[in-house]
Amino acid sequence: MTTTTPALIADSASSGFRHGTIEQRDLRPDDVRIDVAYAGICHSDIHTVREEWGTAHFPLVTGHEIAGTVAAVGDAVTKYKVGDRVGVGCLVDSCGECEMCRDDHENFCTKGSVGTYNDQGYDGEWTTGGYAQQVVASERFVLGIPEGIELSQAAPLLCAGITTYTPLVRWGAGPGKKVAVVGMGGLGHMGVKIAVALGAEVTVLSQTLSKEEDGRAFGATDYRATSDEQTFKDLRGQFDLILCTVSADLPVDKYLRLLKTFGTFVMVGLPENPQALHFGSLIMGDKVMTGSNIGGIKGTQEMLDFCAEHGIGATVEVISADEVGDAYDKVVGSKVRYRYVIDTSTITPAA
Amino acid sequence: MTTTTPALIADSASSGFRHGTIEQRDLRPDDVRIDVAYAGICHSDIHTVREEWGTAHFPLVTGHEIAGTVAAVGDAVTKYKVGDRVGVGCLVDSCGECEMCRDDHENFCTKGSVGTYNDQGYDGEWTTGGYAQQVVASERFVLGIPEGIELSQAAPLLCAGITTYTPLVRWGAGPGKKVAVVGMGGLGHMGVKIAVALGAEVTVLSQTLSKEEDGRAFGATDYRATSDEQTFKDLRGQFDLILCTVSADLPVDKYLRLLKTFGTFVMVGLPENPQALHFGSLIMGDKVMTGSNIGGIKGTQEMLDFCAEHGIGATVEVISADEVGDAYDKVVGSKVRYRYVIDTSTITPAA
Repeated sequence: MTTTTPALIADSASSGFRHGTIEQRDLRPDDVRIDVAYAGICHSDIHTVREEWGTAHFPLVTGHEIAGTVAAVGDAVTKYKVGDRVGVGCLVDSCGECEMCRDDHENFCTKGSVGTYNDQGYDGEWTTGGYAQQVVASERFVLGIPEGIELSQAAPLLCAGITTYTPLVRWGAGPGKKVAVVGMGGLGHMGVKIAVALGAEVTVLSQTLSKEEDGRAFGATDYRATSDEQTFKDLRGQFDLILCTVSADLPVDKYLRLLKTFGTFVMVGLPENPQALHFGSLIMGDKVMTGSNIGGIKGTQEMLDFCAEHGIGATVEVISADEVGDAYDKVVGSKVRYRYVIDTSTITPAA
Repeated sequence: MTTTTPALIADSASSGFRHGTIEQRDLRPDDVRIDVAYAGICHSDIHTVREEWGTAHFPLVTGHEIAGTVAAVGDAVTKYKVGDRVGVGCLVDSCGECEMCRDDHENFCTKGSVGTYNDQGYDGEWTTGGYAQQVVASERFVLGIPEGIELSQAAPLLCAGITTYTPLVRWGAGPGKKVAVVGMGGLGHMGVKIAVALGAEVTVLSQTLSKEEDGRAFGATDYRATSDEQTFKDLRGQFDLILCTVSADLPVDKYLRLLKTFGTFVMVGLPENPQALHFGSLIMGDKVMTGSNIGGIKGTQEMLDFCAEHGIGATVEVISADEVGDAYDKVVGSKVRYRYVIDTSTITPAA
């Protein structure tokens, strides 16, 4: 049994998106059907639909930064009721039984968590994402969006927010700590806002100073251009934590020199190529280099509550369904400030 | 005012060592003069004297794994008395005032700690190491060697012991944890012994199985050859912690795949070249890669006490002063099992 909903559908890696309808499962007892208000455009959507990360399953509906309201609930749902403000992020299922799931790390489920789109659920069906007027997900993977965050600004928190929140909390961003955020895109601008709200002293390291005014408005107290060699001289040994959000090739050793002894460099971007690292850069000062991959459901709810408490949302540009192709080009060209979100009411059942 | 002591002296990067005498300062109030019984041969000695790590100051006396007994103490010394069993490791001074020194990380003194040899003390004098019948050091940098560890087996603990102990403790080696030690040389064999004593389940990853019997005697419960590709298939996702002691080029991503989610790879070897790393190897599983550089004085004493309590010493071959050149070749050729220590009584005032 299925129902249909209007969605933006890609038929191939080169097709772009067309308006159309997709089928979604009828509600299981633990399912929530969500009227999607906004879906953020994450760079992952672009990599996936363009098959830059491997073969995709078409027809494909992307989108894993989803915010809206509850339209209907299954018989066994207890956490949400019709009308509640909710969101869905990168995951829609996990085994729920392994050590990782029990420890609230569903993102590392040993059976394999199920991605919100372009993934096969445990029932074998392919998942579809948030570029649609409705989505269906188990209540375990539905997040509550507190009052005080606009839904358009909440949507990107479900991926960009949790991706930066997780390592900032794990690696101790807070009062008395100096944090550098590398890159001022969708992830980077959230990294700045969250690190500032956690109480850290934040420096932005961006290729140029073109977004300095915004960075300071988000709470950064320093803003430096990485195209200027002087930056790497001035800031040597300054940071407790560097959160790197860029996916380009990177002079890793140069960045590690900006850390204090025992400092941590966290990567949440994903450069396509292997990068060169001299181990001396880690050994001299017992420095740590790590990566971080989104976060679990409990952590995501904690992040949303934290953002609401601190009045933080993503800085977004709301676009219509017909602007998605253009928006993709601007994301690839680093021209977005700082996240596009699709107003899903502009999707029609057919072109 | 100085006194003299017989020592093994290198006059240039290519000279090898000759017997001779060197001058050492007369005791300051906080100084301890030590009759050196044994000095371990660390690969660092070889790199330094051969100028593989940069220009060295000649004439040079190397050695920073020093064990012996107290010969004399300055007026203000309170920790030691004549006859006490003591050692000196990689450091002989630090500012004592910076945050790092106050937190017992003298190895990262912000003013710059003073190395045991080939370094200039705060007085401008060049330091000389343990390939000598006596050394002089401030009591702050003199360690007590507990009864129950033979001095010959204690000497290598001052560098190889603390270098492996520090990261094993920092990164949680202990009961219920699976630890891999990569490399079975001077550092590696200590890593195995200490990880086993900490209660971890230890696997050795060595190029071949030639030292398997020793590894199992040291307490490892598994021993695999890294030259066998099957090793990397069998052990995928198995380890909480990998301690890598090798200084050769390394397939980093392959080793990271052996870690569990949230696992840690610690490097204490120092490959000469930069190594290739794909950040995806860290991001998929929030894995940690870090380095570790010896340890502080408090940690070194803790390590010595821990080793005495658990009956651990280095596995050594005692050699005479005239065998040092040959021993160097064997260390470079990975033929030592597992640490050469020089019986300093075989050093004569002149050749």
